[in-house]
Amino acid sequence: MKTSLFSYPTPFTPPTTEEDELSFLRLARSRRVGATTFHRLLKDHGSAAAALDALPGIARAAGSADYSPCPPGVAKAELSAGRRLGARLLLPGGPGYPADLLELPDAPPLLWALGRVDLLAAPRVAVIGARNASSLGQRMARKLAEEMGRAGFAVVSGLARGIDAAAHEAALPFGTIAVMAGGIDVIYPPENRDLASRIATGGLLLAELPPGTEPQARHFPQRNRIIAALSRATLVVEAAARSGSLLTARMALDYGREVMAVPGHPMDARAAGCNMLIRDGAVLIRGAEDVIEAMGLEAAPRAEPRPDPQPSPQPAAAKAGPMAAVTGLRARLLALLGPAPTPEDTVIRDLGIDAATLSREVIGLEIEGEITRHPGGLLSRG
Amino acid sequence: MKTSLFSYPTPFTPPTTEEDELSFLRLARSRRVGATTFHRLLKDHGSAAAALDALPGIARAAGSADYSPCPPGVAKAELSAGRRLGARLLLPGGPGYPADLLELPDAPPLLWALGRVDLLAAPRVAVIGARNASSLGQRMARKLAEEMGRAGFAVVSGLARGIDAAAHEAALPFGTIAVMAGGIDVIYPPENRDLASRIATGGLLLAELPPGTEPQARHFPQRNRIIAALSRATLVVEAAARSGSLLTARMALDYGREVMAVPGHPMDARAAGCNMLIRDGAVLIRGAEDVIEAMGLEAAPRAEPRPDPQPSPQPAAAKAGPMAAVTGLRARLLALLGPAPTPEDTVIRDLGIDAATLSREVIGLEIEGEITRHPGGLLSRG
Repeated sequence: MKTSLFSYPTPFTPPTTEEDELSFLRLARSRRVGATTFHRLLKDHGSAAAALDALPGIARAAGSADYSPCPPGVAKAELSAGRRLGARLLLPGGPGYPADLLELPDAPPLLWALGRVDLLAAPRVAVIGARNASSLGQRMARKLAEEMGRAGFAVVSGLARGIDAAAHEAALPFGTIAVMAGGIDVIYPPENRDLASRIATGGLLLAELPPGTEPQARHFPQRNRIIAALSRATLVVEAAARSGSLLTARMALDYGREVMAVPGHPMDARAAGCNMLIRDGAVLIRGAEDVIEAMGLEAAPRAEPRPDPQPSPQPAAAKAGPMAAVTGLRARLLALLGPAPTPEDTVIRDLGIDAATLSREVIGLEIEGEITRHPGGLLSRG
Repeated sequence: MKTSLFSYPTPFTPPTTEEDELSFLRLARSRRVGATTFHRLLKDHGSAAAALDALPGIARAAGSADYSPCPPGVAKAELSAGRRLGARLLLPGGPGYPADLLELPDAPPLLWALGRVDLLAAPRVAVIGARNASSLGQRMARKLAEEMGRAGFAVVSGLARGIDAAAHEAALPFGTIAVMAGGIDVIYPPENRDLASRIATGGLLLAELPPGTEPQARHFPQRNRIIAALSRATLVVEAAARSGSLLTARMALDYGREVMAVPGHPMDARAAGCNMLIRDGAVLIRGAEDVIEAMGLEAAPRAEPRPDPQPSPQPAAAKAGPMAAVTGLRARLLALLGPAPTPEDTVIRDLGIDAATLSREVIGLEIEGEITRHPGGLLSRG
C-alpha cells in the first residue's frame, strides 16, 4: 500500500524488521512520550531505536535523572498479546497504516488492527451520533450507513450505543471500521460484544492502546481524532447540543475533512447539535445521495453485500397506500395527522372546530381505516 | 412617510389630488397594462394622466385600432367601493406606500389597505408555510410570529390555512399584515373570515386587485411577490418540496431579501422544502433569536401586545419535569421514547432485548407514570 509521509521532512525508514517494530512499540509506550512527542523524536533521530537511545539523555537534560524508556519485555508482551488475539500491528509508513492519519501532528504511533485490513484501502466516511438515539435517528443511521456501504465506502464509527452501533450493523455486510477507545479486546459498551466479534471478521476493529486496556474518559477524545482523520467526511446523525459527536465533528473540520449533519425539528433536543453544525456550515444531508453529491462524486460504483452470514438490514416499513379521495374538513384533519399520535385537543384547536364536529369526522375515518384512535385522546393516521 | 423613488429616473410627481388618483387607477386598470407596463408608461410620460392620453396612440401603433383605456366610471366605482369598505388607496410615492416595493420592476401600481396603515412603517418579516401544516409546524409558526412581534416586527403572511393563519393569529396582538390574492373584501379561504376581520382592525389587510375580485390561481404568485418584497426576511416554517412557499422564498432571494427556514427530519415530507432551502443557502432558524441574530440586530426593543380584545396565543404545553433517576436498561428505554408513541417492536430491536424483558421494564415504568402504553403495541414517554 502506498503511503505518503509528508509530516516527516527528515528522511525516515519505515520499520521492516521485528527489531524495528519492537523499537517503535517501546518508544510509543515510553513514559511521557505522547503521540506528538513520538513523531518529534522520530524526526529528530531518524529511527525509533536511535530515539530510544537518546531518550534518557533528553530526560536528564530536562531534570529527570532516573528516566528509563519502556523495557523491551513490556513491548514484547504487548506484541505477543496482540498476536494471540490475531491482531496486526500497523505502524506509520508501514503497510496498511492509513496515509490520512499521517496528516495529524499527533498521528497514532501505532494501531492494532483485527479483521479486514483491506478496508483501510477503501474510501471512508464516519457515521456517528448520540448514544441515547431515538428510533428515528437509528433508522436514519442504518439507512445512511447501508447506502454509503453500497456506494463503496467503508463506514467508520466508534462502536458506541445508539447511532454508532446502528451504523456498524447496517454497514457490516459491505465493510465497517470500529475505532475503539481502549484495547482491541476490551469491548465497550459490553452489550456490543456480539457486534464487535462480527466486525472482527466481517469488518475491522482498530485500537491505539495496548490490548487489555480499559477505556477511560480521556481516551475517547483521542479515539475520536482517529475517526475524524480516517474519514473523508463525518456524518452526524443525531447529537445533543453538548456532545462527543460535536467534538468529533469539530476535529474533522480542523483536519480539513467534510462535516455533514442530518437536520431535525428545533423542538427535538436530539437534533440540537446537528442543527448547530448546519448553522456553522456543515452540509445538510437528507440521505446518502446528498453525501455523495457534496463529495463531488458521480453515481458511485455500487458494492454488493458480502455473502458472509451477517444479518441484513431490516427492510423499511411499507409506506401507506395512496389516500382515498377526501374533501374539506376530512382532508384537513388527515393532513394534520401523521403516524405519530397527536392529541385531539391540538387537532381541535388547529382545525378551529368543536369536539362534537371532530368526533363525527373521526368515527367515519376510523371505520374506513384511515385513522386510529388511541387512549388518552390521541389520534394518528393509518 | 418618506419614500424613495429610485426606480423612477424621470422626474415624477406623486399623485396628490383626487383627479390624479383617478388617473392612476384608470391607468392601472386599463387592458394590457400590467404592473411593469404601468411603470414604463409613467416613466415615459411623466404622469398617469399623460400616459392615459398617449395610450390609444400607442395601441394604434401596435395594431390595435379600437383600444380605449379604462373608463373613468369604472375607476370611480372602484374608488367608492374601496371607500365604502373603509379601505385606503396607497399609490407609489404617495403616503403609506411602502418604499421597499418600489424596488420591484413590477411594483404594485396601487394597494388597497384596510386597518393599521401605520404597520407599514415598522420593520417587517414574513412567516409563511404549508397549508396542510402539522400541529408541530403550527406551533413553531405561532412561536416565531409571536416572538418576532414582541421584537417589534410586523409579521407579514398570506392569510392561507395552516402556517399563515397560525402566524397571523399569534402576531395579531403586536401587529400583522395579511396580503390577499383577491379583493380586500374577498376572504380566501372562507374559514379565515373571522381572523381577517380581526386583522382589519388590529392589523392590516392589503390587496392589489379591485374590491370584489375572486382570487384565481394566477393571482397567488402576484400576491406572493408583495409578501416577499415587503419583508426584510421571509421565514419558511413547513413546506413540501414543490410548494407556493418555496416560490415566495425564491422571489425573496431574487429581491435580495433574506430567506430563513425551520429544518425538520428528512423523513418528514413537510420539512422537505425547508431542508432544500437550507441546502441552497437559507439561514437555518430554530427560533426568533436566530432570526434576529441573522439580521445582525442587537437585542431588539421589546413590544408589548396592544390591549385590543384579541385572543392571546396559547401558552406552550408545560414541559415534563426532570426525569426520575433511572439506570441501565430503563434509562436506555426512556431515552428511546419521546412524546410520539413508538412501536414496541422498534424499541425491542433498538435495545437488542427480548419482548419479555421489555415487558418487565414497561410495567414498572408505567406504574411510576414515566411511560404510557397505547394499543397497537405503542409506547410513549409521560
